[in-house]
Amino acid sequence: VVADFPEPDPCEGEALVHVRVVGICDTDLQLARGYMGFRGVPGHEFVGVVADDGSDLAGRRVVADINAGCGACDDCRERDGHHCRSRTVLGIAGRPGALAERVAVPRTCLVEVPSGVPDDIAVFAEPLAAGLHVLDELPGGPSEPLVVLGDGKLGLVTTLALRAAGLDVHVVGHHPEKLALAARTGARTSLARDHDGPHEAAFVVDATGSPTGLTVALSRVRARGTIVLKTTVAGTHDVDLSGVVVDELRIVGSRCGDVARAMAELATGRIDPTPLVAARHPLREACAALEHAARRGVLKVLVDVAPQCAATGESALSE
Amino acid sequence: VVADFPEPDPCEGEALVHVRVVGICDTDLQLARGYMGFRGVPGHEFVGVVADDGSDLAGRRVVADINAGCGACDDCRERDGHHCRSRTVLGIAGRPGALAERVAVPRTCLVEVPSGVPDDIAVFAEPLAAGLHVLDELPGGPSEPLVVLGDGKLGLVTTLALRAAGLDVHVVGHHPEKLALAARTGARTSLARDHDGPHEAAFVVDATGSPTGLTVALSRVRARGTIVLKTTVAGTHDVDLSGVVVDELRIVGSRCGDVARAMAELATGRIDPTPLVAARHPLREACAALEHAARRGVLKVLVDVAPQCAATGESALSE
Repeated sequence: VVADFPEPDPCEGEALVHVRVVGICDTDLQLARGYMGFRGVPGHEFVGVVADDGSDLAGRRVVADINAGCGACDDCRERDGHHCRSRTVLGIAGRPGALAERVAVPRTCLVEVPSGVPDDIAVFAEPLAAGLHVLDELPGGPSEPLVVLGDGKLGLVTTLALRAAGLDVHVVGHHPEKLALAARTGARTSLARDHDGPHEAAFVVDATGSPTGLTVALSRVRARGTIVLKTTVAGTHDVDLSGVVVDELRIVGSRCGDVARAMAELATGRIDPTPLVAARHPLREACAALEHAARRGVLKVLVDVAPQCAATGESALSE
Repeated sequence: VVADFPEPDPCEGEALVHVRVVGICDTDLQLARGYMGFRGVPGHEFVGVVADDGSDLAGRRVVADINAGCGACDDCRERDGHHCRSRTVLGIAGRPGALAERVAVPRTCLVEVPSGVPDDIAVFAEPLAAGLHVLDELPGGPSEPLVVLGDGKLGLVTTLALRAAGLDVHVVGHHPEKLALAARTGARTSLARDHDGPHEAAFVVDATGSPTGLTVALSRVRARGTIVLKTTVAGTHDVDLSGVVVDELRIVGSRCGDVARAMAELATGRIDPTPLVAARHPLREACAALEHAARRGVLKVLVDVAPQCAATGESALSE
């Protein structure tokens, strides 16, 4: 349902942001199906322009870290607040999202977009941050090939991130045309049905988005290996974890990353996520955009909110 | 079934060991129920005396690392061979165990028992090694309390190991009398029904031996925390792993440890596992010993094979 919500009313510490482009993520689709009980405006991958509020960032293009912590707890003070127990998460938990003309965002979450980075690239900063975050779970930077399971949005963005870091990546998926996108990054690729490397990989990233992803990862990882779980699947699932103990495996969950780091990577021009864009819809067709994104095999669907910056009318902002 | 097996015939590189005492482990009970398809002589926790074979260890009391690798692969050359793909595991996989009068053991697996360590303490070297191995998964040595789930053999031996390392341990179990044993090590203890510390522990060790142990651990660990899995449970089980990603948890499997390190710890006299001994049976009652060990709530059952060293008759060996 597309609905008229009240104009966002930024609280102390928040900025009003005029949204330009929004990316649809599988989490948005899960939320639409009831995940986390979220109601309201979804959308957490976006590029926008800060309203003319007299602040340092007034009129600047921005993306955002979607996690907004309390600022006072240990996690907020010592780390990034991504696990603050009082956190809100833009368009996911406790805070309206960006699939709208305007959104209120905590100023501490905002990351400026360098002028050389187009909207369609900058809108990938949040998912790319999540992909780069996998590197934080690979101490020492593995010298061995890393297997990425999944050639969907999650798998491909993770592949972009890992390849940008110079890692030897082997992507295993079900779709030749998506594996071709992975191959363009220099990754090796295999169709899942051809990939019979049982218990050979030191590092496996489950980016399948499927409840069976972990079981496949368990069949691929070798003893004392690491599985990085990117797939969030709600509910209980049957899984045989005896190998985790016998083979002394390490399973590490990995969620959001550092959006500023991702933006810095995008600014180098080394990463081009735009081949992942499958379609774009205007905001008034937001429902169609979500339905389109939910179709099997569709990669990134973008929603144009104010691509020409009509919202602010500031010519300095058009690239 | 107690059966007459042929006299062990040590291969090149193996020693014939006259068994003195054997400890019954839950793995032995699982093997008896068909786990891993093992057939033959079980028993992997033992103390024995090396036969008078002219070797350096002839006539010496020994325990053993139960994993015997090929000696040639990467895991054997660079690590401890515990994950050698061609390994045999004493009394568990591909190699007859020690619940017998004599057993053949690869010499590289043997660890001498210092003269000051009685048999009934030395027989705990193998399970204690597994307990100490938990420390390898706690980089930097945690300054925070560590929750051990389970007050059975596995939980208590792990508690002995972690307390010997000076860690702040909180044992959660179901049996006041077993928790009392944990308390004697200086650990804090709670009955599971009274332990309502949801998502507060930075480190949780699942030593429950139960398929539900992981689910309990997931309810106790805090964001970015670590769960060390000691419980080996065959088969698939329903588990909700969504928290692993959302809370960026780390689940690490932990199996066998360094038996020489455990023996060194036992030699210091700081660790006394003997309160865990619930019963002892002679070898001819091995079946009764297994049945006894399988009774609910029974801790360590020992099997006396040649406690007075009658097997060798060498007076120098009697302590």
